[in-house]
Amino acid sequence: MPLRTRLTERLGIEHPIISAPMGLLAGGKLAAAVSHAGGLGLIGGGYGDGDWLDREFAVAGNVRVGCGFISWSLEKKPELLDQVLARSPAALMLSFGSPAPFAARIKQSGVPMICQVQSMAHAREAVDAGADVIVAQGGEAGGHGGSRSTLTLVPEVADLLADAAPDTLLVAAGGIADGRGLAAALILGADGVLIGSRLIASSEAAAPPGFQQAIVAADGDSTIKTAVVDIVRNYEWPGEFSGRALRNRFVTSWHGREDVLAEPAINADENERYWSAFRSGDADNTGVFMGEAAGLILDVRPAARILDDMVAQAERALGEGPQRIVRSRT
Amino acid sequence: MPLRTRLTERLGIEHPIISAPMGLLAGGKLAAAVSHAGGLGLIGGGYGDGDWLDREFAVAGNVRVGCGFISWSLEKKPELLDQVLARSPAALMLSFGSPAPFAARIKQSGVPMICQVQSMAHAREAVDAGADVIVAQGGEAGGHGGSRSTLTLVPEVADLLADAAPDTLLVAAGGIADGRGLAAALILGADGVLIGSRLIASSEAAAPPGFQQAIVAADGDSTIKTAVVDIVRNYEWPGEFSGRALRNRFVTSWHGREDVLAEPAINADENERYWSAFRSGDADNTGVFMGEAAGLILDVRPAARILDDMVAQAERALGEGPQRIVRSRT
Repeated sequence: MPLRTRLTERLGIEHPIISAPMGLLAGGKLAAAVSHAGGLGLIGGGYGDGDWLDREFAVAGNVRVGCGFISWSLEKKPELLDQVLARSPAALMLSFGSPAPFAARIKQSGVPMICQVQSMAHAREAVDAGADVIVAQGGEAGGHGGSRSTLTLVPEVADLLADAAPDTLLVAAGGIADGRGLAAALILGADGVLIGSRLIASSEAAAPPGFQQAIVAADGDSTIKTAVVDIVRNYEWPGEFSGRALRNRFVTSWHGREDVLAEPAINADENERYWSAFRSGDADNTGVFMGEAAGLILDVRPAARILDDMVAQAERALGEGPQRIVRSRT
Repeated sequence: MPLRTRLTERLGIEHPIISAPMGLLAGGKLAAAVSHAGGLGLIGGGYGDGDWLDREFAVAGNVRVGCGFISWSLEKKPELLDQVLARSPAALMLSFGSPAPFAARIKQSGVPMICQVQSMAHAREAVDAGADVIVAQGGEAGGHGGSRSTLTLVPEVADLLADAAPDTLLVAAGGIADGRGLAAALILGADGVLIGSRLIASSEAAAPPGFQQAIVAADGDSTIKTAVVDIVRNYEWPGEFSGRALRNRFVTSWHGREDVLAEPAINADENERYWSAFRSGDADNTGVFMGEAAGLILDVRPAARILDDMVAQAERALGEGPQRIVRSRT
C-alpha cells in the first residue's frame, strides 16, 4: 500500500520522504537517487559555490531534484538563488535565517518554497513568508539546528498551521532514520519527513567510507552539540544554531576551549589539519556531523533500499493500528 | 476501545499513563487522582523529607499509588526507601543516578522497580540492575533530565530491550502532553508514557495557580535548560543533568552568571527571595519547571479529564491507521 500523504500528492512523489540538503555530502548523485527512489532529493547548497552547484545539477541529469540553501550564507551570494531557480528545481529549501529576503523571488518563479524552522518564532516567520512546506527540525538532527525537539515542535507547528495556514504542508526533521520515526511523525501531524544522517550512510552519498562507518558504529549517546566545527572552519553561524557532530578526538579536544581555537595562529594550523583529515575521511580528527538517530543506523545501503524499508516499516506500524498494542517483543 | 498495552496488563491499570514523581508538585492528591483515573500515580520523593512522604501517602489513602526518588539524593537518606517500601507502593521509581545501590532491596520487596534513564549508558545500567520498567526520558522534559531526545532514545532503548531484556517494559517520557504524543510513543516502541508538565496544569497538582497559568501561557520556545534553579537552591546535581524551566525573569537574570549566583552572600539573599516567590506562586521570580510540551498545554483540567482525552485522541490516531494519511487540516 503506498503511504500517500498531502506531501506526496502536492509534490508528485511516491514516498513522503525528502533528503536533507547537506552541504558537501548531498550532491547530485544522492539527490537523484532519492528522487529516483520515489522521494524528493535535495542538493546541498552549503556555503555557496556556484561551480559546485552547476556540476552537481549536471550529475543529477534529468532526474527532478531540488536544492537547499543556508539563508544567512545565501544573503552574501544572492545570485546563486537565480542560478538555481533557472534550472526549475523541484523545490527550493531555505533554512537558518529569515526567508523574507528571498521569498518573493521564489514565489514568483513558481518553484515550491520549503522553509525549515527550529522554533515557533521561525514557524510564524515562515508562514508570513508564504512557505509552501514548513520543515520542523528538532535539535536531535545532525549538523546545524536549534534547541527545540522534534517530538514537541511538530505537533505545535501542526496546531499553528491548522489555525493560520491550513494549506501549508508540514514535514518533520531531526531524529528520524527508520519507519518508526516516519510513522510517529505522521501521527504527530506531519505530512512527511526529511532525513539526513540515514542518507549519509547510503551508497550514493558523497561521504568518505570513514564517515559512514563512524555513523554505523555510533550509538545515540555519541553526538554532541558544539560550535567547534564552525570555529575551525571560520563560518560565522548565528548563535542560536549549533552543529551536532560525533564526539570524536577533534571535538573533545576543543569543545570548551572555543576561545583558544579562535586565536588566529592556532586557527590557521587547525584549519589546515582539519581539512586534510576531512579530505582523507579520518573520522576521528575532523568534524563529522551526525544526528542522535545514528544509534538507529546499522549499515550502509543504497538510498532506494533505505526509502523502501522506511516506508514498509511505517506502513506496518500504522496499519497494525490499535490491535498491535498488546504485543510481546520476543 | 481500551488502549491496552503490556504496561496496563503488567501493572493492572487501565491506561498506559504514569504520572511523573515531581518533587513538591506531585503529592498524594495528584497521585491518587491519576491512579483513580486509570493510570499509575507516583508521589514525588524529591530531595527526601520523611514527614512529607508520610503525609502525602496518607492523603492518597487507600488508592494504589507509587513513589519516585532522585537516586543521588536517596543515597544520602537511604532509610526513606524502607519507609516507602513498607507501604507496599504500586511501584518504586528511581532516576538520576545509579539504581545499583537500591535494586536488591526493591526486588526483594516484590515492588515493581521503574528505572528512568536519559541515555543508552543509563539504559544498559538499568537492564543490569534488573529494572521491571525502563522510562526513557528525553531532554524536552520539564525539570531535570539529560541531553538525549525522546524521539531517538525510545526506539534505541526498544532495540536494546528486544535484544537484552525482552520482558522489561519501556515507557516514554519528555515532550508528551496529548494523545498524539502517546500514540507516537507507542509507535516508537514504548508500552506507555510518563507525563509531568501536563499534570502540573491539573486541578489536583500541588502547584500554585501562577505556575499553572505560566504553563498555559507558555509556548514550546519559552523554556531553557539551566543550572540556576539548582544553584540558588544549593542542590548539587551531577553535571550531566540540568533542569528545564520557564525562561522567566529569575532565569534570564542569572543564566550565564552562575558563578555570581554561587557566591555565598549573594546566594543567601537570592535563596531567601527565591523561596518567598516560590511560596507565593510568583512565576516570574522563582524557578518554574516545565517541559517543551508546555506549548501543547492550553488549560487546567482535572487529571481524569487529561487522561481520558489523551487516550481517546491516541486511539483515534492509531485506529485511523493508514487511511487517515491522506487528509486535510481544514
